[in-house]
Amino acid sequence: MSAPHATPNAIRFADRLSQVETSAIRELFKLLGQPGIISLAGGFPDAALFDVEGIRAASERALSTDPAAALQYGATEGYQPLREQLAALMAGKGVQGLAPEQLIVTTGSQQALDLIGKTLISPGDKVIVEGPTFLATIQCFRLYGAQLITAPIDADGVDVQRLEALIAEHRPKFVYLVPSFGNPSGALLSLERRRRVLELALRTQTPIVEDDPYGDLYFGAAPPPSLLALSAEVAGSRDWLLHCGSLSKVLSPGLRIGWLVAPPELLAKAVMCKQFSDAHTSTFAQATAAQYLQGGRLAAALARVRVVYAERAQALGAALRSELGAAIDFVQPQGGLFIWARLTGAGGACADGQALAQRAVQQGVAFVPGRPFYACDPDLATLRLSFATVDAERIREGVARLARALKAGWEAGRK
Amino acid sequence: MSAPHATPNAIRFADRLSQVETSAIRELFKLLGQPGIISLAGGFPDAALFDVEGIRAASERALSTDPAAALQYGATEGYQPLREQLAALMAGKGVQGLAPEQLIVTTGSQQALDLIGKTLISPGDKVIVEGPTFLATIQCFRLYGAQLITAPIDADGVDVQRLEALIAEHRPKFVYLVPSFGNPSGALLSLERRRRVLELALRTQTPIVEDDPYGDLYFGAAPPPSLLALSAEVAGSRDWLLHCGSLSKVLSPGLRIGWLVAPPELLAKAVMCKQFSDAHTSTFAQATAAQYLQGGRLAAALARVRVVYAERAQALGAALRSELGAAIDFVQPQGGLFIWARLTGAGGACADGQALAQRAVQQGVAFVPGRPFYACDPDLATLRLSFATVDAERIREGVARLARALKAGWEAGRK
Repeated sequence: MSAPHATPNAIRFADRLSQVETSAIRELFKLLGQPGIISLAGGFPDAALFDVEGIRAASERALSTDPAAALQYGATEGYQPLREQLAALMAGKGVQGLAPEQLIVTTGSQQALDLIGKTLISPGDKVIVEGPTFLATIQCFRLYGAQLITAPIDADGVDVQRLEALIAEHRPKFVYLVPSFGNPSGALLSLERRRRVLELALRTQTPIVEDDPYGDLYFGAAPPPSLLALSAEVAGSRDWLLHCGSLSKVLSPGLRIGWLVAPPELLAKAVMCKQFSDAHTSTFAQATAAQYLQGGRLAAALARVRVVYAERAQALGAALRSELGAAIDFVQPQGGLFIWARLTGAGGACADGQALAQRAVQQGVAFVPGRPFYACDPDLATLRLSFATVDAERIREGVARLARALKAGWEAGRK
Repeated sequence: MSAPHATPNAIRFADRLSQVETSAIRELFKLLGQPGIISLAGGFPDAALFDVEGIRAASERALSTDPAAALQYGATEGYQPLREQLAALMAGKGVQGLAPEQLIVTTGSQQALDLIGKTLISPGDKVIVEGPTFLATIQCFRLYGAQLITAPIDADGVDVQRLEALIAEHRPKFVYLVPSFGNPSGALLSLERRRRVLELALRTQTPIVEDDPYGDLYFGAAPPPSLLALSAEVAGSRDWLLHCGSLSKVLSPGLRIGWLVAPPELLAKAVMCKQFSDAHTSTFAQATAAQYLQGGRLAAALARVRVVYAERAQALGAALRSELGAAIDFVQPQGGLFIWARLTGAGGACADGQALAQRAVQQGVAFVPGRPFYACDPDLATLRLSFATVDAERIREGVARLARALKAGWEAGRK
């Protein structure tokens, strides 16, 4: 071929792809295949805790009760019996007056985020997220051209005073928050701050997206009510509230069942976008989830899961304190799957999360450095450690290896 | 509230939403709830033909063989055993040398279209589609800002000479074709034209998207090989080919299992986009589909389905000819779910598809007027009639009602 344009692979891609890069986490995950490695890097629930028998029976009922509904095309809004079950689930968590028609089923809550991006973000629009926040949210919104602004957080969640100042300065399209046990921060937005966030949304007419996949995974007392539940106390605030729910962390990620609650006009536009994204979420998975929820096994399954994660969180926190001492700083989480920690550099120890992550893999333990969880201004000393899929004994061994990696880092630093 | 901005529902939506409108089909579908109506309007396969027992057994095996894989998070690219089964399925249809890694699993082929749009279309980019083409493709690509150009078709598929001229004139980002039994046209791209399309893609360096959900639903002889299969004969053409497959029409739409074959660089970018769209397709549905395909029941299930659809297509064609005679013109389809017809206006009869659709509902029969299937320059005399979900006797009754609607329209026109 001598034609000047005959180079293959000259496909021209969309401009939006230049907004994102391949995840640093993905590169790290490739190393995890090494035999014997203890992974505190995952973001997964523990598959050993899934209620397989309950899901099997639910699937069986879905196919025997109404096979056509479970296998045929379905409404883009979602399978009506599942919408009813999800509305009832939300009612049980204090959300008053939520009709099934006020939520749509999404293909995991990741799709709810995607539909929010598609529905609301024009290229160049500003969106405020927490720093740090969920990695896939950052990339998802950037693909729609969002310019992300980060609001700082502490163990009580987002700093509402700073958030208010950022809203005034940037007039964002919306604000994205994970109020309960966020990934990676594990932070829990206090009741008082929740009320202030709702008032702020109403006063500044700023939509708030509440992403709540972890709220049910608490270890002691239940967290404060969700923003959606609390919105009943702040008249008019629900007009500015979007809420993303998920069965991934409490039942099974593989079903890919999430949902989105939003004001009617926004929900209608999200449905239109979903129609052209995937037509509808698997009716087979939806009918199975509906049968499962109707069967009433979720509460008991959740109670079992909470006990296990609480024990593992405790084991990880204790091991970090005893093995790493002053070299690491963190707040013991009250729920979720993660400990978010910061290397202090005390005694000249390594204070670079990325450098430590590489050395840790050499010692046979993995975690995720904090950097990719920041949309901007990363704190390079941070790290995310998951306790969800490793038993207490292996957690202790993993942290011992981490201490060796930190020591190796320290000694390498002295040379 | 006296603040000037206190009007609720002042959420500002993304500019891209102004590109699309609520589907005309949706409005029509709201009328279909009327009791006794015979619907030739659907785009669905017949749920009565689903292999429920086969799917139930496959689901059971998926949960007993490897429950963690079926219920846990999975790779964005797809569940590896399903990718292997799909590659084998394609090999059985003459696609040579397709490794499982050269395809990704999507949430229905609708998501493959969405990922193609997200990966390739920048606002203002031109894309060529057939006129008429799949409605959800039009809206999907428009949401990414595409400017759509239509290439004319006849019963042998797209007019390649006109397509070549349009490519030269518009330099489109890509061309979207449904070569076999397209929705709504039912047209079948001839072997000779398929070869010319591949040569054209290579010569003009224009990516071609082949959407092939219906190719297996043939009534007599199998259609010519897919563009993907034929690409082996036109060296280098596979570098310019994207192929969307689906289990929706041959197994079950409710599983939401589609796939995308594309050149490596494009596939990698589509995976990145999918990661932030829905993370991955339901592993529960994927593992079930993998078990089903491995079980080897698809060929027999397809053979049964083909016989039924062939009989119904025959019944619909014969009834249209005998009841509507010269007032309607169509080519009897050789596969798929649809007859695409044109009102001739012979004898002064109604020649407006939209007007006839409304009168038809009054007579107790529904179909979809052709207008929304055109991205531009609609032929208002066209209509789409589905024979998939109605038995032969009801088809004949439906067409008798359609004849009465046409007569009513004719008489109304004479008044």
